[in-house]
Amino acid sequence: MTMENISANRSFGGWQRQYNHYSETLGCSMRFAVYLPPQVEQGEHGEPGIKVPVLYWLSGLTCTDENFMQKAGAHRIAAELGVAIVAPDTSPRGDGVPDDAEGAYDFGLGAGFYVNATEEPWAKHYRMYDYIVNELPQLVQQEFPVTDRWSISGHSMGGHGALMIGLKNPQQFCSVSAFSPICNPMQAPWGQKAFANYLGDDREAWRQYDSCELIKIAKSVPPILVDQGSDDQFLTEQLQPEKLVRAVASSGLNFELRIQPGYDHSYYFIGSFIEEHMRFHASHLNK
Amino acid sequence: MTMENISANRSFGGWQRQYNHYSETLGCSMRFAVYLPPQVEQGEHGEPGIKVPVLYWLSGLTCTDENFMQKAGAHRIAAELGVAIVAPDTSPRGDGVPDDAEGAYDFGLGAGFYVNATEEPWAKHYRMYDYIVNELPQLVQQEFPVTDRWSISGHSMGGHGALMIGLKNPQQFCSVSAFSPICNPMQAPWGQKAFANYLGDDREAWRQYDSCELIKIAKSVPPILVDQGSDDQFLTEQLQPEKLVRAVASSGLNFELRIQPGYDHSYYFIGSFIEEHMRFHASHLNK
Repeated sequence: MTMENISANRSFGGWQRQYNHYSETLGCSMRFAVYLPPQVEQGEHGEPGIKVPVLYWLSGLTCTDENFMQKAGAHRIAAELGVAIVAPDTSPRGDGVPDDAEGAYDFGLGAGFYVNATEEPWAKHYRMYDYIVNELPQLVQQEFPVTDRWSISGHSMGGHGALMIGLKNPQQFCSVSAFSPICNPMQAPWGQKAFANYLGDDREAWRQYDSCELIKIAKSVPPILVDQGSDDQFLTEQLQPEKLVRAVASSGLNFELRIQPGYDHSYYFIGSFIEEHMRFHASHLNK
Repeated sequence: MTMENISANRSFGGWQRQYNHYSETLGCSMRFAVYLPPQVEQGEHGEPGIKVPVLYWLSGLTCTDENFMQKAGAHRIAAELGVAIVAPDTSPRGDGVPDDAEGAYDFGLGAGFYVNATEEPWAKHYRMYDYIVNELPQLVQQEFPVTDRWSISGHSMGGHGALMIGLKNPQQFCSVSAFSPICNPMQAPWGQKAFANYLGDDREAWRQYDSCELIKIAKSVPPILVDQGSDDQFLTEQLQPEKLVRAVASSGLNFELRIQPGYDHSYYFIGSFIEEHMRFHASHLNK
């Protein structure tokens, strides 16, 4: 695997960088961003840099690798805690990758929903689940000074992705968190549109990517923290945190879901609570 | 004066808001953003909110009122310190406002350079100096719970604006800071293009808007802090901090200019040092 560094910005003593690489899983060139905290570099007195744990961040509909890095204010905390952040794109992109016929924001490009599509014409490229769970971490392990301690977080569609991937791979992630996740995509318009197109009409095939369904069959889960704004414009129709609360209550699992009064779906909400999420992850990454 | 609230986002316990108002000075409708920290609101136990001091932020070329609020990570610190932030747009905009004939990024819309234009067709609308120094603060004082303690900061073209306005109005601002300012616009391509168009060919008329020229005639200045990245792609040709250092050295004024190794012209640089600037301003706003 080869990759090309396409941008580098000094940030809080570390580096914000973007890379292009050819993804075998997705069959296209992909861009991702990484924040490397100052701890990975040689110290002022020649001390060698150390390897650091990784937080994977999955973004929401319409986003790229850039939104979180530019708007969340997470670099400051990552630099303090000594955690790398990896932010992939939200779908395959580029030549030959099909998009929604009408260019809708909630399906196709920018809306991969972190599943492996089985239906045509999506099945060839739209395999974001495998990309996030397998190919990207392998590349990151190979190319950057990181340990094998990983956590995962995300927002909205990416909150769904983080919860779902964390629930399906409890050994792979030390902790999981989400902002405003699509909790029960099988029962939400965004999820139904995406799953029907990517996975077909058989709803049995949808369950494997629905956090509420996964909780029902989970035996153990990593520590999980979810924040949801009470004034989120997508709360009732798309996000449905009450479904997650109900599933968790029935499961007997340990799970923190907080409603934050007055906050909405924006990056101002993420920015306001990202420090608590980062400290939550660091407490488990550094165990 | 009337204004319309067009967005509101809860952020760090306070509010990020955008407003439209008709500017008599600029002859067009203008948008600006304000962050109001939690201190202005009634407390949990019914304590009344308090009035807070204001930091005016002037953005750089191509920016609007949004860039700083979304990317700098300043809300967290403003919320802690109890400081409001006001971010205006970078030029007049809208129906009838002329733009660069070729739509260049460095002149016209998004590039008002914080001067009062005297040349046609710019003189009617391009009066950002008066807008920032007079009309906008009057509106802010009238409409928001703020004190009459103000500071000013900015980036690049807005760093030029903050320094120049602070030097011309030392009684109005408790402190002044800048990131990567255009220090000597009369001698820089960006400034020469803007000043020739807005102010005409007589370079004597340019001096009143050039920080290095203003320092030569200043009797007293507010406390000033300037940060400049050593790896800024505009450093040598456009920003010329060495000119500012020379002018300050000749003046005997008190002035801190820091070179930050490895940082560039991006918001990652601003984000990395905005906390120090906010604490610098708060220390003078709260005297």
